[in-house]
Amino acid sequence: MSAFYRIRGDASSIEARAQAIAVEQSVEMPLAAIRDPGILSDIVGQVAAIEDRGDGWFDLRIDLATATIGGDAGQLINMLFGNTSLHEDVILRDFAAPDDLLAAFGGPGHGVAGLRRRAKAEGRALTSSALKPQGLAASELAQLAFALALGGLDIIKDDHGLANQSYSPFADRVRACAGAVRKAAAVSGKPTRYAPSLSGSLDEMRRQIGIARDEGVDTVLIAPVVAGLSNFQALRRLNPDFAFLAHPTMSGAAISPVLFAKLFRLIGADASIFPNYGGRFGYSAASCKGISEALLGAWSRIAPSLPVPAGGMTLARVPEMLDYYGRDAMLLIGGALLAAPQEAIAKETESFVRAVAEYEYGRIRG
Amino acid sequence: MSAFYRIRGDASSIEARAQAIAVEQSVEMPLAAIRDPGILSDIVGQVAAIEDRGDGWFDLRIDLATATIGGDAGQLINMLFGNTSLHEDVILRDFAAPDDLLAAFGGPGHGVAGLRRRAKAEGRALTSSALKPQGLAASELAQLAFALALGGLDIIKDDHGLANQSYSPFADRVRACAGAVRKAAAVSGKPTRYAPSLSGSLDEMRRQIGIARDEGVDTVLIAPVVAGLSNFQALRRLNPDFAFLAHPTMSGAAISPVLFAKLFRLIGADASIFPNYGGRFGYSAASCKGISEALLGAWSRIAPSLPVPAGGMTLARVPEMLDYYGRDAMLLIGGALLAAPQEAIAKETESFVRAVAEYEYGRIRG
Repeated sequence: MSAFYRIRGDASSIEARAQAIAVEQSVEMPLAAIRDPGILSDIVGQVAAIEDRGDGWFDLRIDLATATIGGDAGQLINMLFGNTSLHEDVILRDFAAPDDLLAAFGGPGHGVAGLRRRAKAEGRALTSSALKPQGLAASELAQLAFALALGGLDIIKDDHGLANQSYSPFADRVRACAGAVRKAAAVSGKPTRYAPSLSGSLDEMRRQIGIARDEGVDTVLIAPVVAGLSNFQALRRLNPDFAFLAHPTMSGAAISPVLFAKLFRLIGADASIFPNYGGRFGYSAASCKGISEALLGAWSRIAPSLPVPAGGMTLARVPEMLDYYGRDAMLLIGGALLAAPQEAIAKETESFVRAVAEYEYGRIRG
Repeated sequence: MSAFYRIRGDASSIEARAQAIAVEQSVEMPLAAIRDPGILSDIVGQVAAIEDRGDGWFDLRIDLATATIGGDAGQLINMLFGNTSLHEDVILRDFAAPDDLLAAFGGPGHGVAGLRRRAKAEGRALTSSALKPQGLAASELAQLAFALALGGLDIIKDDHGLANQSYSPFADRVRACAGAVRKAAAVSGKPTRYAPSLSGSLDEMRRQIGIARDEGVDTVLIAPVVAGLSNFQALRRLNPDFAFLAHPTMSGAAISPVLFAKLFRLIGADASIFPNYGGRFGYSAASCKGISEALLGAWSRIAPSLPVPAGGMTLARVPEMLDYYGRDAMLLIGGALLAAPQEAIAKETESFVRAVAEYEYGRIRG
């Protein structure tokens, strides 16, 4: 397994820093104190490449033993970045792993193809929105869900801040919103999905999935970094009938968003949300393209995960976003739809859905 | 609840950035689209203070509604930093919460007083070491554990990289190491504890605690960020008989280590490991003092958590570290003890234990 870091430094000390990271991310002790030659040759991290980028930053490749991982996603991130994350001048950019390690994680259970089948959306991008703001009662969120679903979206997700708050407990919210979306779908004839947001411990998230399943829900939002990657991995294994949308909250800036997209895909995200360029976050268009390619590109036997660019998007940007991402994406417009007067939300949503459906995908790509 | 951020910016745009963070960390949508006046007044984050530090950085205080948390630690970090963590120019420095929110988390079950009682160590600092390197078989780790325990340490923990690897599966390792420590403790007469490292999902960690309990173990190492804070919270509630040592792996540099120490204490760390100044990490002495005070200082009804400065420490630094931290600390020396020839590890450890026991604590402080 290789880990790719970017580190601020100078030419005189870069080899020592690289070697220190190789040791920190493997045996974490002075090599002189290691008596076992097999550990020195097979377990200690090896500095494989150092490249001076010329701007005060260096790119490192360090090879790590896959035997230290054992198929657990928390341990994967622990060995890739763990203690080194405490340094403010090191970024984890990417990793490469052999097929058998990738196979142990398995990737999305549904992925792009599965989400398309569920949405009956073969030739177009998918559409989604978010229920918010935080603070609304379950019945009020359900009203919004009803209006959004009438508009014909593919997926309506909870805002990632909705948890199990007293003003909108998870069980009440899921019953109300799933019911509202069912009712609207019966009118629209569309297979719109409601995706509630999971929170809390694995036990609590398992309980929440149970409540959701009882309401006919088969899609959930999860924040893998908050949940702990291993717990997302466990939930995905325990609930093969569910599709998982991954949210990037708490993923920070020290691990590249491209790598996080890759990790989410690896451990089972059927779709991955990320901040689109030109929105509320400072991501560049190139970085978003990198994320999209990390989610969709050929990668061992790991199925593709659907890119979901989001964060302050508007109807006006739909053509431009489809030019950029093509059909293999799910556009997410939240606040801009909810900003319409309550009685106009369904119409506004319909315009969004129509714009995505009628876009000429052949024009630019695939 | 107040969140304290440090942000890079300029005077002309700082108010807009502060306001954007207040919205992002609460309702996450344009305020103009919020129709409910109760949400605008009670739920939307409020910029309470902006202070220009004069070095291109500003300190912000943003007040957030405690109602959005609901007593879950994952949701606490999600609301404090969540999406804002994606910005590379914002640091979360601290938070302040009312007593009722703090009480919902509960703090350490054993804390400094409990660890002292278990170690029969009233007037002195505690001592510990780590089992490594990664890659050793269970029987080899047990040999090291035996030697370290003969030396009379209070706690011998697994390296945080030890998980459930094929070369040293958790169950084999815990049986071998717990047995070795028991045997050595019978010789030394000291109540030395072995603290295995938990990894994986909550289900897996629960299984691991079960194995540990069957071996008479009552102390474990946990990496709260990797586990997911809510899962640590759950484990602490489910296992009141266990003491938890928290490890900072994956805690990054964008949340201050002082705040992480506080969060670990809040959700139940009886002791918290952090990189000592002058070791392998770039922490300043002042920062380590801040961490120590965050763990020990009076804080509502939350019990103190034991500071564990670590990371490349040596016997030579014992007096200086005790001058700095006083008796309310546990010194952790790993590699430097294990660097001794196998037959000298017990003696070397004994010197460490003696140095800590014989230090004149009254000389400097309490």
